[in-house]
Amino acid sequence: MKIEILTIFPDIFSSFLSESLLAKALAKGLLTVDLINIRDFTHDRHRTVDDRPYGGGPGMVIKPEPLSEAIDSRLALGGPKPFIINLTPSGRLLEQVLVGQLAQKERLMLICGRYEGVDQRVLDLYSDMDLSIGDYVLNGGEVPAMVLIEAMARLIPGFLSDSSSVQDDSHSYGLLEHPLYTRPRVFRSLSVPPVLLSGHHAQVAAYRLGEAMAKTRAVRPDLLEKKDVMERTIMFFSQSSSPLKGKDNK
Amino acid sequence: MKIEILTIFPDIFSSFLSESLLAKALAKGLLTVDLINIRDFTHDRHRTVDDRPYGGGPGMVIKPEPLSEAIDSRLALGGPKPFIINLTPSGRLLEQVLVGQLAQKERLMLICGRYEGVDQRVLDLYSDMDLSIGDYVLNGGEVPAMVLIEAMARLIPGFLSDSSSVQDDSHSYGLLEHPLYTRPRVFRSLSVPPVLLSGHHAQVAAYRLGEAMAKTRAVRPDLLEKKDVMERTIMFFSQSSSPLKGKDNK
Repeated sequence: MKIEILTIFPDIFSSFLSESLLAKALAKGLLTVDLINIRDFTHDRHRTVDDRPYGGGPGMVIKPEPLSEAIDSRLALGGPKPFIINLTPSGRLLEQVLVGQLAQKERLMLICGRYEGVDQRVLDLYSDMDLSIGDYVLNGGEVPAMVLIEAMARLIPGFLSDSSSVQDDSHSYGLLEHPLYTRPRVFRSLSVPPVLLSGHHAQVAAYRLGEAMAKTRAVRPDLLEKKDVMERTIMFFSQSSSPLKGKDNK
Repeated sequence: MKIEILTIFPDIFSSFLSESLLAKALAKGLLTVDLINIRDFTHDRHRTVDDRPYGGGPGMVIKPEPLSEAIDSRLALGGPKPFIINLTPSGRLLEQVLVGQLAQKERLMLICGRYEGVDQRVLDLYSDMDLSIGDYVLNGGEVPAMVLIEAMARLIPGFLSDSSSVQDDSHSYGLLEHPLYTRPRVFRSLSVPPVLLSGHHAQVAAYRLGEAMAKTRAVRPDLLEKKDVMERTIMFFSQSSSPLKGKDNK
């Protein structure tokens, strides 16, 4: 998978891309990340990337020319047609199913807006999708790009050492994850729930399903209203009750 | 505002914290960020922070002892009682209203889980809130911590040069933002909508409200069902139709 990031703050990505798991994936060639500085495509002395909005109002807008030239420069290199995403709080909401779909793309181009946003005409001409990571406002699309890259990268075969843990995550089957416990058995007078020490796989699965249900009902009841959540949950837990899956820590 | 981050990957934050706006805010003392490496609180030769889950299953769990010692070491320094947040996909969903509430806290401590998650007993003993930035799964809480810090920082007075642009953002009044345009008037044969050049502030406001409504209905109809979205929207647009707000770019 090939990712190209269009940004006026390319340096913000450096320690994220050096982080252990991602650095290993880059070194192994599981994905590539190219940083393109939009400011390199300005032609004035001040290297201006923004201007005031037509119609008035506060803040600044990313100008159409440098951004479109930056995109064109990448398209001119050839290769597969990129799927171009504009990261903005007014986009479609990212969720795990969409992460899985985007992770299938051969080539992604991520536009990181700053200020109020990007001139709409560049988006009309180039962008395939407006994408939001959540209902809150950030300074720009850079941290959202990290979110998307990290979420996709862990779905690439070979990224995680134990790929079965991907299926086990929160949201993979539509419920929040059950609580987790590891050694010691007693920590500050709090014991691990005895069922987890029982060795009865079906009872462990039933306990975890109950906890996942209770947590979801308490914290995110909206998730229980989603289509097919019960089917996915039952399928997941009927698989995980098999003693063949995973290892015990007794 | 004082933020303490508990993580096993403190280095991942360095270029994020050096990014222009955030670096300036740190330099001005608008907020402080301390990075605490959980691994510094292990006592074995291998500096072990994780162990297998009781009850079986894939992946590893953050052990209770090093994390609790790391938190205790910060509490022992005194100061205001921190509000402790565990960043996890199975938490309450972050949204702009909650960002505003958390930005009021004097001291926040952010637990960045890794692997499958954190032993539940540490959370029972210390955590005030499980918090999720969205319905997708990442490698750990580090990038979510960046999301939360950036979202809160921009609400601190003095962080943005033009604080009126905070009110103007997507989600501040419950709808997605209208499209934005800046110079040139014609870009690759696409013109700026004439109303934005008209100088009629009420007509501009009406146009933007219509565009915001249409975009929200198309992309995020769920937002229209939220309580008081219409009241907030009408209040916002009746303010923004004032010719006193913002500057034109004609």
